[in-house]
Amino acid sequence: MMRWLTAGESHGSGLVGIIEGLPAGIEITTADIQDALLRRRLGYGRGARMKFEKDEVTIISGVRHGITLGSPVAIHIANTEWPKWELVMNPDPVDPEEIEGLARNAALRRPRPGHADMAGMQKFGFDEARPLLERASARETATRVALGRVAQHFLAQLGIRTVAHTVRMGEIEIAPGYDFPTADDVETIDADPLRCIDPEASARMVEAVDTTKKSGETLGGVVEVLVHDAPVGLGSHIHWDRRLDSKLAGALMGIQAMKGVEIGDGFDVATRVGSDAHDAIIRHADGSVARTTHRAGGIEAGMSTGEPIRVRVAMKPIATVPRALATVDVATGQATKAHHQRSDVTAVPASGVVAEAMVALVIAGEVLEKFGGDSVEETRRNMHSFTANIKPIPE
Amino acid sequence: MMRWLTAGESHGSGLVGIIEGLPAGIEITTADIQDALLRRRLGYGRGARMKFEKDEVTIISGVRHGITLGSPVAIHIANTEWPKWELVMNPDPVDPEEIEGLARNAALRRPRPGHADMAGMQKFGFDEARPLLERASARETATRVALGRVAQHFLAQLGIRTVAHTVRMGEIEIAPGYDFPTADDVETIDADPLRCIDPEASARMVEAVDTTKKSGETLGGVVEVLVHDAPVGLGSHIHWDRRLDSKLAGALMGIQAMKGVEIGDGFDVATRVGSDAHDAIIRHADGSVARTTHRAGGIEAGMSTGEPIRVRVAMKPIATVPRALATVDVATGQATKAHHQRSDVTAVPASGVVAEAMVALVIAGEVLEKFGGDSVEETRRNMHSFTANIKPIPE
Amino acid sequence: MMRWLTAGESHGSGLVGIIEGLPAGIEITTADIQDALLRRRLGYGRGARMKFEKDEVTIISGVRHGITLGSPVAIHIANTEWPKWELVMNPDPVDPEEIEGLARNAALRRPRPGHADMAGMQKFGFDEARPLLERASARETATRVALGRVAQHFLAQLGIRTVAHTVRMGEIEIAPGYDFPTADDVETIDADPLRCIDPEASARMVEAVDTTKKSGETLGGVVEVLVHDAPVGLGSHIHWDRRLDSKLAGALMGIQAMKGVEIGDGFDVATRVGSDAHDAIIRHADGSVARTTHRAGGIEAGMSTGEPIRVRVAMKPIATVPRALATVDVATGQATKAHHQRSDVTAVPASGVVAEAMVALVIAGEVLEKFGGDSVEETRRNMHSFTANIKPIPE
Amino acid sequence: MMRWLTAGESHGSGLVGIIEGLPAGIEITTADIQDALLRRRLGYGRGARMKFEKDEVTIISGVRHGITLGSPVAIHIANTEWPKWELVMNPDPVDPEEIEGLARNAALRRPRPGHADMAGMQKFGFDEARPLLERASARETATRVALGRVAQHFLAQLGIRTVAHTVRMGEIEIAPGYDFPTADDVETIDADPLRCIDPEASARMVEAVDTTKKSGETLGGVVEVLVHDAPVGLGSHIHWDRRLDSKLAGALMGIQAMKGVEIGDGFDVATRVGSDAHDAIIRHADGSVARTTHRAGGIEAGMSTGEPIRVRVAMKPIATVPRALATVDVATGQATKAHHQRSDVTAVPASGVVAEAMVALVIAGEVLEKFGGDSVEETRRNMHSFTANIKPIPE
Repeated sequence: MMRWLTAGESHGSGLVGIIEGLPAGIEITTADIQDALLRRRLGYGRGARMKFEKDEVTIISGVRHGITLGSPVAIHIANTEWPKWELVMNPDPVDPEEIEGLARNAALRRPRPGHADMAGMQKFGFDEARPLLERASARETATRVALGRVAQHFLAQLGIRTVAHTVRMGEIEIAPGYDFPTADDVETIDADPLRCIDPEASARMVEAVDTTKKSGETLGGVVEVLVHDAPVGLGSHIHWDRRLDSKLAGALMGIQAMKGVEIGDGFDVATRVGSDAHDAIIRHADGSVARTTHRAGGIEAGMSTGEPIRVRVAMKPIATVPRALATVDVATGQATKAHHQRSDVTAVPASGVVAEAMVALVIAGEVLEKFGGDSVEETRRNMHSFTANIKPIPE
Repeated sequence: MMRWLTAGESHGSGLVGIIEGLPAGIEITTADIQDALLRRRLGYGRGARMKFEKDEVTIISGVRHGITLGSPVAIHIANTEWPKWELVMNPDPVDPEEIEGLARNAALRRPRPGHADMAGMQKFGFDEARPLLERASARETATRVALGRVAQHFLAQLGIRTVAHTVRMGEIEIAPGYDFPTADDVETIDADPLRCIDPEASARMVEAVDTTKKSGETLGGVVEVLVHDAPVGLGSHIHWDRRLDSKLAGALMGIQAMKGVEIGDGFDVATRVGSDAHDAIIRHADGSVARTTHRAGGIEAGMSTGEPIRVRVAMKPIATVPRALATVDVATGQATKAHHQRSDVTAVPASGVVAEAMVALVIAGEVLEKFGGDSVEETRRNMHSFTANIKPIPE
Repeated sequence: MMRWLTAGESHGSGLVGIIEGLPAGIEITTADIQDALLRRRLGYGRGARMKFEKDEVTIISGVRHGITLGSPVAIHIANTEWPKWELVMNPDPVDPEEIEGLARNAALRRPRPGHADMAGMQKFGFDEARPLLERASARETATRVALGRVAQHFLAQLGIRTVAHTVRMGEIEIAPGYDFPTADDVETIDADPLRCIDPEASARMVEAVDTTKKSGETLGGVVEVLVHDAPVGLGSHIHWDRRLDSKLAGALMGIQAMKGVEIGDGFDVATRVGSDAHDAIIRHADGSVARTTHRAGGIEAGMSTGEPIRVRVAMKPIATVPRALATVDVATGQATKAHHQRSDVTAVPASGVVAEAMVALVIAGEVLEKFGGDSVEETRRNMHSFTANIKPIPE
Repeated sequence: MMRWLTAGESHGSGLVGIIEGLPAGIEITTADIQDALLRRRLGYGRGARMKFEKDEVTIISGVRHGITLGSPVAIHIANTEWPKWELVMNPDPVDPEEIEGLARNAALRRPRPGHADMAGMQKFGFDEARPLLERASARETATRVALGRVAQHFLAQLGIRTVAHTVRMGEIEIAPGYDFPTADDVETIDADPLRCIDPEASARMVEAVDTTKKSGETLGGVVEVLVHDAPVGLGSHIHWDRRLDSKLAGALMGIQAMKGVEIGDGFDVATRVGSDAHDAIIRHADGSVARTTHRAGGIEAGMSTGEPIRVRVAMKPIATVPRALATVDVATGQATKAHHQRSDVTAVPASGVVAEAMVALVIAGEVLEKFGGDSVEETRRNMHSFTANIKPIPE
């Protein structure tokens, strides 16, 4: 059983994540984590914060000389803006006089629709939104991406690779019938402003971002994550919460701002008849099986089939809309405009990096569930032994 | 922490489910469970099995004189067809001669695309599909519906009510802009052949089912579940796996044959700009807050907002297509047609009943997580105390 | 991850347990479970109930023709006394007139010290003890023993075997320095009235039981469980709740009436100096390692060492003392004697069977955690591959 | 559901712990955590390391201006000796030449009996013990103490208080029949060299430590933890793993070097007859109930009774015995003496502080399980409402 927790406020001194239950022998360095965090900042349509913030990474534990020890891996990401926030977000009591006049400390009493502000104030009993938005902020995804990178290295050492790309920005979709990208395409995808594999669609998406920005609006979209070369048999039909599709859906919907998840052809498959909805089974010359189509997204009855695993997740437009949404001032009761603190037009391209991390974490957990292992070598041995023992189909 | 497990094979002697962690004081009877199971058989387009099978319900434990004791509730659903299957599915060894010639015992070696058959044989090391399909069958959802009914009664005693309805059958959708149905509409919905609130759409769906049946095909669709009068603050933004949207997505995608999940406006919201994607906050005369729209599905930052919770789930067409899908005989290696054992055209209408049960189980768990309580009275007291202590917004 | 739940009231229609996450391929039959339940009734000093009650076992699911399918195994144990209790414990409402005068339905308002009665009434809001004692009763351990037997068969197929025996009854202990019993001794142990391997001590224990009975008292004791041939490396030092000793302690203290748990020499080791408290490491001729003593109980730093695992658990005297304990009538406030419903002098010998089941469940879970596997063959392959890959110590 | 994870190697750059699921409103500061860590260093018989090491504490998240936010609390404890270890324990690859000759980097191939060394090398596939002992070290308990302090503050705000003290050092026990210490005694206890409430016994314990030290030995012992003013009804009889005694036993046995756990009178109660083993129930003048004795340790049927909760845990003597234990050199196969790196005679007095932290974490989790709450105020309100609604016993 692999477990992980994240902690940290958006403007606190730093974020930290702990992942526990990974085997010894994973190759990972500070530079790898930094690279992962840089990728989380990619994408056309981001505001200034993405540029002035830096991610100072420290691997606190679990790794020695570039290799995991089997003990919990903890990663700290410092907030380089901390000096500006140290009074406002200090864990310890501060002199009230010192913070009294600070703009950064002003109570946020115009809750933003679409955020944790309103429900959070009521749930936790706060009279302003600062204590909520600090944790609800998508900055938290930095820890997921950092831990996800460890999971991705583990998977890569087993030959399993992940890739994510943008398939929709607002009303612009990529052309259907595209070839699924692989891990070899990551560099190209990262180089595209929208992380889109379709240059023509990407160009139109850039335009859409520009138009949206001019109109003081924000933009949603859809990203797709693929897992290549995962073995058959991850997840299980045995119980609903062991199903791989259930776990992936929970993990992806657990990302900030996500409102929809699809496995394979997803909602579209609900519009079709049965013979256009499933993947016929054929025998390969070597006695293995394959599918003629990829409608199921590589998952049947909650189990990976050995085909590429494919999932999509829909992100709503950023809720901090520059034009500002209608709300109420909780202190005065006056109708007003919501707080507005950030100027990204869209975070969809970067959300692919987060979604990929979440998928990698799920797959890593399932690999360990099925194959066990306290060292990468042991897990790999068990996985290969399993696949080698699958009875070939006779001719 | 509420937990539950289900067990049982489709053609075994029976199914059983245990739910644990519910408070004492829930009012529930055998007749209530039977009613829930009858509703799971509803819907135009079901085959003969739905008619000849009956659900003989026994509440094994946890309930005395119609009221829960606080101890685990176990519900058994007998298989009335068991005498026909007793040899084939007997837990104990049987005389090989007795079953040798039985058609029901024939090895299933033509795995059905879209089912657990192929991946399951490889995962568990079986050389035929019987051991997989027996558990992967949607008959298992009977236990979820039974346990879900207990959760629904618990919620109803707190004033929280659920309802599900069909919003799409293949290419036919209900007209947009409909009023959300409430628990008061359940009877009407159940009376509709497709469990659809739009009579005009329902009529066209009936036609679609008929056409599909004639062509030897099956049909998918989409159902929507609503939760009314849930308090603000269920779920949490604090950690990804505490988010109510994450839990609902995992639970719904954990239903057999589901390929997509949406919260509120879901994928559609990804096509819009920010000011059309969120729900403005207003103040009611009594100092409470409300929203002018329902795009978020009653969930912001993973927390319920106090608005109706609304989720959708997409079901693929039944994979056992009468025309039969292409597969391979795992014993001979010959290309062939898949096994075909069942003649439903669609299970979408009934899947709403299952989805509603899953949602109720999630909400019940979250209510207990936030409010605790070992008796319904204690939970209710804590919930009312919470809502009574939410500070009204001044005028 | 292996999971299990039990359900059922002492005088309800039956008990049921579900275990989930065990691999396919475990050999188990109804007769095996019946045998396990018979062993739970062993031991000198039991009252009449052990004789007139019978355990009618039904394997509801997860097993076909004597072999597990990989799906959840559910086992039902019917209460043969149910007709006598059907009105009193009916899940559905009964005619009040029918039960009004029944002695069995009388409210239990003199809570028994040492039982769930008093704390349970307050926790759940009941005004009598019936709803508590029905679930708190040790009859529930029948489901643990049933599920534990499945775990034991799984372990036995991997060559891992468990045995339990009585080491103390009240003031009588077995002679120190005994050879640890193995699975080969189970028959002999079961044949002893106290399940004690020391005939001389056993004889004195019989006397003690007789004396205790005459004085209207009850008797506690200590049982020891051993696990032979478990591989090195079960459990982990990585996190406190992964430690094998933590899991065993939780499982054993989770048995009704237990007040103490020891690993290896336990409390005694706290009285010694370091060089008398640990097990020196030596090299065997084949390059494997062994220990010269068994003080640690086969567990170091939360991991199995490959030596026999040895744990002890202390049971308090049965709280339903024939002489009766002082209590208060919750309806009248009068000081009185507690209800007294049962006439066992001691349940210590049988508690070894329960403790063995709990240990087997823990070890089975840990084997799956380390080695994974969806079939016994896969788990065994992975386990053997692990042990074969342990580097021998050179000469 | 409250969760927590710890991470960190003994000689790494630092330790970190995350606790998640605690309510908003707990008052806690960096100084409080520092104080807790200082207490973990108490006790006669500790070596030099306790003096030269310092605990530099940073609350990374979850606390603002001395009050928890409801979000995960992360606490970092820096290793002030890190500069000495930076090369040897660096997470990133280091120049092999730089560390080649370092004594600190020498492979540890003489595994110490009683430690993680031997089993760990085999489990994880390491050829020396460094990667094991770094995590298995009791230094990890610093994070438990830090997180436990947060739990203790939460409990204190609810009026629930914990205290731990030493009841045995080797062969020296405190005199029986002592009055249970309360939280008011903590200062006195901390001032005693052994954290013992019995000055006479304490003096003899000091002598025992001195004698033991002279003989090159180490010493074990027993500590007791008490919880005062916990409400009735924490834990549950409903399922084994919900029992408070099971959770406490798992948590305490999950501390490094523990070999035994008792609830209340523990093993001693197994030697008695029934009427000397339970706590008679009486009615107080105000209609509440109490007990005449405290044998059960405040827990019946896995539930707190409202009496003081009392548990004991037995610690083995430190396994790094100065005289050194017999082992084998895994590189050469030669019989030899184990590595010896540390010079504490005993850690028993300090282990009380760790045990108290673990108990506080368990109780805090159970309070949240029963009473829920997202703010201390909400939890307190629910708890008071529960106790106020317990029906008094009439006169």
